[in-house]
Amino acid sequence: MNIYVFTIFPEMFEGPLNTSILKKAREKKILNIELIDFRPYSPSKHKNVDDAPFGGGAGMVLKPDPIYLALEDKLGDLVTYPGQILLMSPQGVQFNQELAKELAKEQSLVFICGHYEGFDERVRALAHKEISIGDYVLTGGELPAMVIIDAVSRLIPGVLGESESVVSDSFYDGLLEYPHYTRPRSFRGMNVPDVLLSGNHEKIRLWRRKESLRRTLERRPELLEKVNLTKEDLKLLAEIANEEKGTNG
Amino acid sequence: MNIYVFTIFPEMFEGPLNTSILKKAREKKILNIELIDFRPYSPSKHKNVDDAPFGGGAGMVLKPDPIYLALEDKLGDLVTYPGQILLMSPQGVQFNQELAKELAKEQSLVFICGHYEGFDERVRALAHKEISIGDYVLTGGELPAMVIIDAVSRLIPGVLGESESVVSDSFYDGLLEYPHYTRPRSFRGMNVPDVLLSGNHEKIRLWRRKESLRRTLERRPELLEKVNLTKEDLKLLAEIANEEKGTNG
Repeated sequence: MNIYVFTIFPEMFEGPLNTSILKKAREKKILNIELIDFRPYSPSKHKNVDDAPFGGGAGMVLKPDPIYLALEDKLGDLVTYPGQILLMSPQGVQFNQELAKELAKEQSLVFICGHYEGFDERVRALAHKEISIGDYVLTGGELPAMVIIDAVSRLIPGVLGESESVVSDSFYDGLLEYPHYTRPRSFRGMNVPDVLLSGNHEKIRLWRRKESLRRTLERRPELLEKVNLTKEDLKLLAEIANEEKGTNG
Repeated sequence: MNIYVFTIFPEMFEGPLNTSILKKAREKKILNIELIDFRPYSPSKHKNVDDAPFGGGAGMVLKPDPIYLALEDKLGDLVTYPGQILLMSPQGVQFNQELAKELAKEQSLVFICGHYEGFDERVRALAHKEISIGDYVLTGGELPAMVIIDAVSRLIPGVLGESESVVSDSFYDGLLEYPHYTRPRSFRGMNVPDVLLSGNHEKIRLWRRKESLRRTLERRPELLEKVNLTKEDLKLLAEIANEEKGTNG
């Protein structure tokens, strides 16, 4: 996949793009990431990229022209450009795992990182999609772009090794994950549940499914409505309900 | 505010913490951020921080002991520690602007960054709060910690200059932002709305409020339910409804 990131802070990306999974994916040439500073594209003498807002008010607004010129220089004709052009914006659609899966199928992704408190409205005309990573205010679109690049890259075949299997990840099947345990067996009075030491694969599978359902029920019950629950799931949920009754009575 | 970040990838943070607003806040000593690699705290000979999961399955699980030892070394007695200890986890409460405001009141914030696909369940016992930045799967807790640090820092008095006023930011008043425009007045056939060039402050204020309501109604109608709408807002919403009728009829 080709990824182009348009930003005035390309240096922010160096650490995150050169660590762990993303580093390996770039080394394997599965990901090709290009960071483009759009400041040099500014037609103004001092290479300004922002200016005061028409109508007054605090803050500066990113100008449209440097961004348009940078994209056209790197991507060619934007009308016929085959990749997805994404604008990082708190007003965009909410990024989630479903959207990550969709984006992972694209050949090229283009990220435009503005300052969150304002880019000129006409920049929106460039984007195929505006995406928000959550309902909070950030300084710029750089961290959201990194978050999306990380989430999407993990879903591209070959990026994760077998040992890093994506199958059991949270949200992959719509439920929260079951509890994980590793050594030591006993740590400060907290013990690994016996079932995980039993060697009985079927019991372990059932315990994990049940705890996954329990955790989702306790913390994010609304997620259960979107999942296709099996007969087994319903039986486990009934068991959980009985157990909780016992605890509370 | 004192911020401690426990991670095995401290180098990921260098760019984001040394750019823009966060860089300035650190220079002004409003933010003091310490990055602590917990790998050296591992009691194992090879300084391993993860191990295979009990019960089998793909992936590795972060061990509890290096994380406990690192926190205790840096923060002292954790039971009486006065700051908020936050675990980055896709199973946590959803981060949003309300939570950012709460966290901005703390004197110290502690971030534990695990690998998302698994830390030992007993690490949870350390945390006052588990936080998720959204319903998507990431490689680690590092990007979420950066996102939260950015969103929270912006709300600490003195971090933003007057020119970067936070007041009109998206979500600050529960609505999406109105459109911004700056020079040039006309760009590729797209013009700045006349009202913004009128110099009439009251008209500009009303236009902005109306467009903020319109955008919220179009893109995130559920947000309107949480806002205390004024009489003026209701009048503007009625106008919008009438205009939309005109467009569709």
